[in-house]
Amino acid sequence: MADESNFIALLRGLAADPVARGLADDCAVLGDLVFTHDMMVAGRHWLPDADPADVAWKLVASNYSDLAAKGAAPVGVLMGYMLGDDAWDRRFVDGLSAAIAAMGGALWGGDTVAGGANSVRSIGLTAIGRAGHKPVPSRTDATPGQSLWVTGCIGAAFAGFRHDAERKVASEAEIARFRRPTPRTADGIALAAQVGAMMDVSDGLLLDAARMADASSVTIAIDRTAVPLSPSVAQGTLADQALRWGDDYELLFTLPDGVSPAAVATRIGTVLPRGVEPLLVDGMPPSPDRALGYLHDRPV
Amino acid sequence: MADESNFIALLRGLAADPVARGLADDCAVLGDLVFTHDMMVAGRHWLPDADPADVAWKLVASNYSDLAAKGAAPVGVLMGYMLGDDAWDRRFVDGLSAAIAAMGGALWGGDTVAGGANSVRSIGLTAIGRAGHKPVPSRTDATPGQSLWVTGCIGAAFAGFRHDAERKVASEAEIARFRRPTPRTADGIALAAQVGAMMDVSDGLLLDAARMADASSVTIAIDRTAVPLSPSVAQGTLADQALRWGDDYELLFTLPDGVSPAAVATRIGTVLPRGVEPLLVDGMPPSPDRALGYLHDRPV
Repeated sequence: MADESNFIALLRGLAADPVARGLADDCAVLGDLVFTHDMMVAGRHWLPDADPADVAWKLVASNYSDLAAKGAAPVGVLMGYMLGDDAWDRRFVDGLSAAIAAMGGALWGGDTVAGGANSVRSIGLTAIGRAGHKPVPSRTDATPGQSLWVTGCIGAAFAGFRHDAERKVASEAEIARFRRPTPRTADGIALAAQVGAMMDVSDGLLLDAARMADASSVTIAIDRTAVPLSPSVAQGTLADQALRWGDDYELLFTLPDGVSPAAVATRIGTVLPRGVEPLLVDGMPPSPDRALGYLHDRPV
Repeated sequence: MADESNFIALLRGLAADPVARGLADDCAVLGDLVFTHDMMVAGRHWLPDADPADVAWKLVASNYSDLAAKGAAPVGVLMGYMLGDDAWDRRFVDGLSAAIAAMGGALWGGDTVAGGANSVRSIGLTAIGRAGHKPVPSRTDATPGQSLWVTGCIGAAFAGFRHDAERKVASEAEIARFRRPTPRTADGIALAAQVGAMMDVSDGLLLDAARMADASSVTIAIDRTAVPLSPSVAQGTLADQALRWGDDYELLFTLPDGVSPAAVATRIGTVLPRGVEPLLVDGMPPSPDRALGYLHDRPV
């Protein structure tokens, strides 16, 4: 199936349980428990020469970032793991151990399978978190008049990717943000009681902002010059690419106008009544010639 | 890594949380919620010409069988799905829909990824259930003097596999049991308040009984002639193979001597104080020349 969105549309018919939030929110919510599942595939979600410990770290971090956007602290993970060679697997466990030690939670269970002779390695992780505030934030609750905010900066992982994949110059911080991102767990917990909508930025700022707009039936207007960009990708065409690249793992959220966020963040836009376009950047719809962000049916 | 058990030993260090039950119980238990994750890989867990709807059904059933052994009714699943071709994916959703309609639960979320050019398809499922009785049964609570029981019969899926893979004669019921097993959910819920240890038989009766014995620090003695075998594999060497084949999805459990089970089941043995061997069949340790059951590093 060429298009992930067609497949998800089929699955939506199986997700009538309100816990599933219509498969539109990255997490399921049952009482104060929050559930998410991310899958990574070799050659698509990590570079061939990536440190397996970094692969493990990022798998945990990407799931915990979804939990952070619900204001939830991680409590456990279950992993589906395709066995490979001994050294790779051992190093992966090192990274998994480091990630859990640094970011919380515990290994609760899972399954290991051997790959086929020509298997491309795939690894899935389900993370369970406990939300600190109810109602648990969703991406559907942006309302006109609210302001739009983002934690941290956009493009650091993009700069780090350019370093690791293309030997471009990047700072140590940018390289670390690509290899071992830290989810904004504490920020998400602090913000949960304040926000309208909240989600994490994992597939590109513009794409994720457009998703928030569609889920909330609003138009989101981003002030391009207000978006904090990582230094190595802050200029020219790189800046435009940075807005469309993934792996930021920052939190994107809306607040009632005039309210200051309970975490360090930058105001980057405004929520408008729904117009024709879900997203405006400096008042104009983004160019339709390029994807708004990272879609999973494209390789890295 | 050649040996799944070495890898799991490494992971056990990350599973100190009591919720994880030491990774020794197929499920994690948090309050009355029960969590399990199974992964299936093309060519290993399903035949090349398998109906994708049956693959989906079995993925759900194998997870729900783990829940059944905890006396838990399924409430939701999260799926990690590697996209393939359109027809295969659509048919898979048909089977997933049928499985959820027949066996309960709902789709809560998950992730879809595109495979690489040479990807072997892999699909992971996390299932969450709600247990009806506390303490939630585990495989660690077999005690000497208890009797050993199994629901249904052993070998039906083995007979069905022989039909589908090798064109051997099998009954419709056996073929159905291989393609679309039904977990013993109601039986598990009824038994949960009675049992000592309980687990599902998914990797072969002898292997799973040995695992229960090891987890409970006992020896389990099986009366070979008491084991109910499916008709097509009840005789000769097939009968021996049936005891070591997987996919039965029956419940194996212990009861205090003299107690009758709350579900239809057959008494097949006795729990003894721990001796040298974890398992005796008609008083003798099983032949060490053959695997006791299905280990995941061997292909189907």
